[in-house]
Amino acid sequence: MQLHGIQRLDILAMRTHCQDRGQKGHDDVPKRVDPDERRAAIAEAVYQVIGDRGWDAVTLRDVASTAGVSMGQVQHYFATKTDMLLFALTHMRARVLTRLQQQLETLPQPVSLRDQIRATIGVMLPVDEPGRQEAAVNIAFFSAATVTPEYARLLHDGYKRQLWFGRAQFAAAAADGLLNDNIDPAKEADALYFLVQGLIGPVLIGLLTPGEATAILDHQLTRIFRKT
Amino acid sequence: MQLHGIQRLDILAMRTHCQDRGQKGHDDVPKRVDPDERRAAIAEAVYQVIGDRGWDAVTLRDVASTAGVSMGQVQHYFATKTDMLLFALTHMRARVLTRLQQQLETLPQPVSLRDQIRATIGVMLPVDEPGRQEAAVNIAFFSAATVTPEYARLLHDGYKRQLWFGRAQFAAAAADGLLNDNIDPAKEADALYFLVQGLIGPVLIGLLTPGEATAILDHQLTRIFRKT
Repeated sequence: MQLHGIQRLDILAMRTHCQDRGQKGHDDVPKRVDPDERRAAIAEAVYQVIGDRGWDAVTLRDVASTAGVSMGQVQHYFATKTDMLLFALTHMRARVLTRLQQQLETLPQPVSLRDQIRATIGVMLPVDEPGRQEAAVNIAFFSAATVTPEYARLLHDGYKRQLWFGRAQFAAAAADGLLNDNIDPAKEADALYFLVQGLIGPVLIGLLTPGEATAILDHQLTRIFRKT
Repeated sequence: MQLHGIQRLDILAMRTHCQDRGQKGHDDVPKRVDPDERRAAIAEAVYQVIGDRGWDAVTLRDVASTAGVSMGQVQHYFATKTDMLLFALTHMRARVLTRLQQQLETLPQPVSLRDQIRATIGVMLPVDEPGRQEAAVNIAFFSAATVTPEYARLLHDGYKRQLWFGRAQFAAAAADGLLNDNIDPAKEADALYFLVQGLIGPVLIGLLTPGEATAILDHQLTRIFRKT
């Protein structure tokens, strides 16, 4: 199915260039520190600190100790705390896409467009520990973004890319005749994306179980997609 | 129309007891400091500090100076910063309901259930400066709630109350025959509420204009409500 191939390409196109590098060396040469791997490890430490102790707890010292490196090494890679946080937010995209790829691989192959859309949107829900950590980090950045334009810009770009991708998926589903009559693919793509954004906080504070949040998503998918 | 009366009562029932007090005195007795008014003024100062400079900027000193009172007075009303913030979050509900009442009064009377639902949900969107401030404060509390259970509990209770109210409105609309066939009132009430929650952040960071966010809400209302 050709569309399927296009979708996969699109998902790959969403990857950041950072993720496309890495593991350049050979097994038989002495292992060197890969700067991308080191930056990624620092980003992961940022997520862990925010996820466990909140945004206020993010200091160079705590991040360094969580990443198992010296403060000097963190400062070698990032001139300021803001630079470090901006990179952490950028790296999040690669992390989420890796999780998405893993989830897609567990689905019946070839993955249907509906399952692909469900996975792409559903991966944002904090239904497991990595998802919970990402959601907590994302909300923290949102809160910071209300007063820090650099964060707002980066979130803005990330959202725009995801909305574009969601619309492309829905357009493909419409072209394949998978959507019900009277469904506006672009509008419903946007609405579904924002709906799931609105489910993240409620799951985080325990108002909704992951299962309840997923059921709300599925109710809308059932409405949008034609019965097969 | 009886249902209309019930709806108004329900909105009043959502008020906090704090708002039901106040203005007890007579015009001809010397004005005393009303503790509720003072607390409300401190809460408003909290919103202003968070809205202008972010969560990290909230200190007793800054809040006192913004409220035009001494730090001692703030400490007289609130034993800890967390107590002050918890009260500020509680007071938010009264503030939003006052704005909602004002908006309902500008609509054609008697207000139709559809307009009422639109206003009740739409009041959460940051389409004006008070709404923007409330949204920024709400996101800040959400971020803090991921590591502070007291905030999570309070947000949880507030959400639960709003979801209950949304479901009651949709049930009334269904009973009045206002909803399209195949609409599950409870599920669509929840989904619409969460959708609007998901629009708040994107409007705050400028990804969506207030008009675009409102159009997304209206597209769903058009789908849900029967054509009149």
